Amino acid sequence: MASKKRVGIIGFGGMGGWHSKFILKSDVVELAGIWDIKEEARQKAVGKGIHVYSSLEDMLGDESVEIVTIATPNDLHKPLAIQAMAAGKNVISEKPVTMSSSDLQEMIDASKKYNKIFTVHQNRRWDKDFLVIKKIYEEKPVGEIFNIESRVQGSHGIPGDWRAKKEHGGGMMLDWGVHMIDQILLMIPERIKKVYAKMDHVTNAECDDGFKLDIYFESGLRVLVEVGTSNFINLPRWYLQGVNGTAVIEDWSRKGKIVTCQIKHDKNVVPVQTSAGLTKTMAPRSEETIKELPLPEVQSDVHDFYRNLVDAIDGKAEQLVTHAQVMRVFKLMEAAFESDRLGQVVDFE
Amino acid sequence: MASKKRVGIIGFGGMGGWHSKFILKSDVVELAGIWDIKEEARQKAVGKGIHVYSSLEDMLGDESVEIVTIATPNDLHKPLAIQAMAAGKNVISEKPVTMSSSDLQEMIDASKKYNKIFTVHQNRRWDKDFLVIKKIYEEKPVGEIFNIESRVQGSHGIPGDWRAKKEHGGGMMLDWGVHMIDQILLMIPERIKKVYAKMDHVTNAECDDGFKLDIYFESGLRVLVEVGTSNFINLPRWYLQGVNGTAVIEDWSRKGKIVTCQIKHDKNVVPVQTSAGLTKTMAPRSEETIKELPLPEVQSDVHDFYRNLVDAIDGKAEQLVTHAQVMRVFKLMEAAFESDRLGQVVDFE
Repeated sequence: MASKKRVGIIGFGGMGGWHSKFILKSDVVELAGIWDIKEEARQKAVGKGIHVYSSLEDMLGDESVEIVTIATPNDLHKPLAIQAMAAGKNVISEKPVTMSSSDLQEMIDASKKYNKIFTVHQNRRWDKDFLVIKKIYEEKPVGEIFNIESRVQGSHGIPGDWRAKKEHGGGMMLDWGVHMIDQILLMIPERIKKVYAKMDHVTNAECDDGFKLDIYFESGLRVLVEVGTSNFINLPRWYLQGVNGTAVIEDWSRKGKIVTCQIKHDKNVVPVQTSAGLTKTMAPRSEETIKELPLPEVQSDVHDFYRNLVDAIDGKAEQLVTHAQVMRVFKLMEAAFESDRLGQVVDFE
Repeated sequence: MASKKRVGIIGFGGMGGWHSKFILKSDVVELAGIWDIKEEARQKAVGKGIHVYSSLEDMLGDESVEIVTIATPNDLHKPLAIQAMAAGKNVISEKPVTMSSSDLQEMIDASKKYNKIFTVHQNRRWDKDFLVIKKIYEEKPVGEIFNIESRVQGSHGIPGDWRAKKEHGGGMMLDWGVHMIDQILLMIPERIKKVYAKMDHVTNAECDDGFKLDIYFESGLRVLVEVGTSNFINLPRWYLQGVNGTAVIEDWSRKGKIVTCQIKHDKNVVPVQTSAGLTKTMAPRSEETIKELPLPEVQSDVHDFYRNLVDAIDGKAEQLVTHAQVMRVFKLMEAAFESDRLGQVVDFE
C-alpha cells in the first residue's frame, strides 16, 4: 500500500478544524500540520496535539507536504493558493474558491504554470440528500422533470465573523449558494439560458443573508436555489416536480417521499369545501390514482474527495472538481449578483 | 325586517350551482330563478325545483329581480353584465370579471351610465386561511414582515372544459391568480413597484396551468403568488416571514403555527452533521431561544358578500369589492402576462 500523502492546513477555524479531524480518519492522506496567523488558533491546534509550523514559509518549505488545504477567509484563498503552488504544492481551496471569476482565472493559470493540481472542496457533492435527488433526476420515476427547488434555511442570521464582511467574501451566496449551484450544475447536463436573482438583506446590509435564484435551462427546466437565514420554520430541502409526480426531501435526515400518478383522470375527486368556496381543481387526489414510493437509497463517502485528489496527483484519475466546473459556478454567481443589481433577468451562456 | 332581494343567476355550471345553494341559506337574498343556454343545465335546475326562465330576456324582464349573478365562462361576463345593467339590474360577475382591463372599463362605464351596482364575486376574501394571514400581517407577532408566499397547488391539471381555452378566458392566472392577488392587494396597503411572472404550461399549451408571480412592494416587502396543477405533494398554503419569526398555514383546514424568536443570539446551537459536512448557520435553534404560538382565531361569514351588496343597493353601505380594486387586480394580472411574455421584470404603478 502506498504511503499516505501529507497535508498542511492553512487556517484553523471551523473548516480547518473539520479538515484536520477528517484527515485523521483518511486512508489516503495524513496531517503534517497547520498554520494560522492567529496565536489563539495555533494554541488550539497545539492543545489537540497537532503540529504547528513556525510560519507559512516553514510549512511551504516542508518537502514532505504534498497537499495544502486552504481554509482561511475567502479573500485570502487566491494569494495563498498561488504561493503554495509556486512552492510546489497541490492545493485544495475551501469554497467559495475566491472573490471573482478573474481571480479564479489567476489561480487556474498558476495551476498550469506550476503544473500543480488546484481544486476546490465542494464536499456537498457527497451529501446524501443531493445524491437522492440526483438519482430521482436521472431515473425519472416522476416522468419528465420541469421544476426543481433547492432550499437551505436557518434562523441564526448571517454568521457575525468575516462571513458578514464584503471585503472577506462574506454573504450567503458565496457561502451556501456556491454548494447548491455546484450541485445543480453537476446534476443537470444542460446549457443555461437565463438567471434571475434577488438577494436578501434582513440582518445584514453589507452582504446578502439569503437569496432566491431562478436558473432557466435550455430544455425549459426551471430550478430555484434559495437560501435564508431568517427562517424559523423550514420549507423542504428539495422539491422536485415531474409531469407524472412530485418528490420531496424534507431535511438532511432525508425524510421524504415520491408521489406518482397512476391514473391521470381522477373520476372520484371530492371537491374541497373551504370557509368561503369550493374547489375541485385543488382537491386532493383519490387514493387509487396515485402511488407513494420511498426515496431511493444512495451510498456516499466524502473521503472520496481526498482519494480522488491523491489519484489525480499520482496521474491515476481525472480531477473530480474541475477548473471548468468551478469557473461555471462562479460565473453563475456573478450573473446572480448582476441580476440582483439590475433588478432584471440576465442572459447566461 | 326588509323583504329579501331576488336574484337571477345566468349560467348554471359549477359556480352557478354554488350560488343557487348559497342563496337558499341567505338572510338577505332569495333565488328568483336561473338561465343557461344549455338545455342540460336548465333540466338540472328543473330537477332541483329551481325556476328556469324561458330566456335571458325573460329573466331580465322580471321586475322582481334586483340582482343578476353571472356565472358563465369568462368571455361572456362583459356582454351579459352590460345587458343586465341596461335592463336595470344590479350585477355580480363571477371572477375573473372579464378578459382585459379595457373590457372591465366598459363594464365600469355601464355601471355609471345605468346607475347600477356592478361588483365581482371575490368570495375568497372570506376564506379563513386568508383572514388568519391578514391578522398576522396586521398584528405582526413575527416583527416586521419582509416575505409572504401564497401557494395553491393541485395535481389534476387544468380543468378540461372552457377553462383550458384562451378565447373563453381560461388558465390558472384568471381562475386562481385573481383570488390570490385580490387577497394580497386587500391585505397590503402599499404601492407596488415591480412584478415578475413565469407561466407554466405543463399540461396545457394554450393557457397557463400554473405560474409563479413575484410582487415587489414599495417598502421592500416581497410576495410570491404561486399556483400549480401538477403538484402531487403540496407546499404550505401560506408562508410568512418577519424579522422575528415565521408563520405557516399548511392548508385550508388551517393546520399551522407561528414560531417567534425570543433570544436572537443562540449560544447553545448544535451544528448539524450531514453526510458530507457540518453547518452551524443552518442548524435548528435551541428550544429556549424560540416560542411557538398557535395561529390566531378568526371569524368569517361569506354571506356578508350578499349582505353588503344589498346594503349598497339600499344606500346603507359602501360596496366592498370596488371597481378600483377589481381594476388594480386586473392590471396586475396583465402585468404578469406581459412579464412572462418579455421574460423580464416589469414596472407596475
